[in-house]
Amino acid sequence: MNNTIERICKIYGYLAVQEQSGADFISSKELAEAIGTTEYTVRKDFSVLDIKGYTRKGYEVKSLKEKLGVKFRLNKERRACIVGLGRLGTALLDYEHFQNDGFEIIAGFDSSINKIERIQTKIDVFPVGALAEVVSSRGIELGIITVPAKAAQEIADVLIRAGVKGILNFSPVKLNVPKDIVRLDMDFTNALRFIAAKFVIQNK
Amino acid sequence: MNNTIERICKIYGYLAVQEQSGADFISSKELAEAIGTTEYTVRKDFSVLDIKGYTRKGYEVKSLKEKLGVKFRLNKERRACIVGLGRLGTALLDYEHFQNDGFEIIAGFDSSINKIERIQTKIDVFPVGALAEVVSSRGIELGIITVPAKAAQEIADVLIRAGVKGILNFSPVKLNVPKDIVRLDMDFTNALRFIAAKFVIQNK
Repeated sequence: MNNTIERICKIYGYLAVQEQSGADFISSKELAEAIGTTEYTVRKDFSVLDIKGYTRKGYEVKSLKEKLGVKFRLNKERRACIVGLGRLGTALLDYEHFQNDGFEIIAGFDSSINKIERIQTKIDVFPVGALAEVVSSRGIELGIITVPAKAAQEIADVLIRAGVKGILNFSPVKLNVPKDIVRLDMDFTNALRFIAAKFVIQNK
Repeated sequence: MNNTIERICKIYGYLAVQEQSGADFISSKELAEAIGTTEYTVRKDFSVLDIKGYTRKGYEVKSLKEKLGVKFRLNKERRACIVGLGRLGTALLDYEHFQNDGFEIIAGFDSSINKIERIQTKIDVFPVGALAEVVSSRGIELGIITVPAKAAQEIADVLIRAGVKGILNFSPVKLNVPKDIVRLDMDFTNALRFIAAKFVIQNK
């Protein structure tokens, strides 16, 4: 199911761009190319999800996006926070593309009071001691972890106890989370490794 | 094949950690859990790749890592550069985990001479006009793009003409690249979308 969810999320993002640029219809071929899969896979995903509406012109962009949005609740605004305001954390704090897509970063946290006081951002920033309280009182559903490796598990535990549904983890640590919590690791090294390995395989 | 390559890269990273911590053997069950897939899938991947050596104690960590390293050339050191030295770019410039895993960031580029002059890093930094020359003369194989959306395609074109094999793209743009070049997009918004969608599906 993970692969289907991943593809649907990419398709949803692509449909959002197409909708903004005024496209009315889209073919499964174009969707497949945009997200790097086959037309067959796109059609199979939609069939499993009982998504209909393929006409000679293709799928209607707006209605397809709406259907996927409802099915996966991608049409809901969700609040996120960032823990760890080093260079990566502060870069993400003001990453404007989140907001266009229904995600709002509403708080940042760091263990250094000095850093909290000096940081220049429009987002509210707090000492990490306030994490549990702010997450639960402000309805934050997603936690983004950009702290050093040794602090990551403890931060994850606090986030989960405070009620987040998922964690986007940038630290190079395998976090332990309960089964009902979604964890996704952004592993930059693995991304480079994938590129290198794929180049080797496809040019053999 | 993409999914197999992705899993193998994650397994390779996990084996590197296990090797460093002194583990001798590892089961396909542990590998599966570590990378978030099933034991069946791990065994199937290995069988497709003709990887043998499963004993009662499991796979020998060192030998399995070596086999995968040779097959996917993951044992080769590769040079990378970062184009766009904003906060994300500079965070990646000094990301120490790359180096432990065979990737070396050897150059950074930015269009602002002012930024180039003020930046504090041990990595060599250059004006973006030097990109083609530095990439080809220093044997850089991987380009990491952290420039704003409107500059991304042009930078990708220069990188490719200068001889990179793959591009790790952090800009929110679908880059056009020739078929033999590997492109991987790091889409932070899509990562949050995946977490939100998966939470909805698994807790239905």
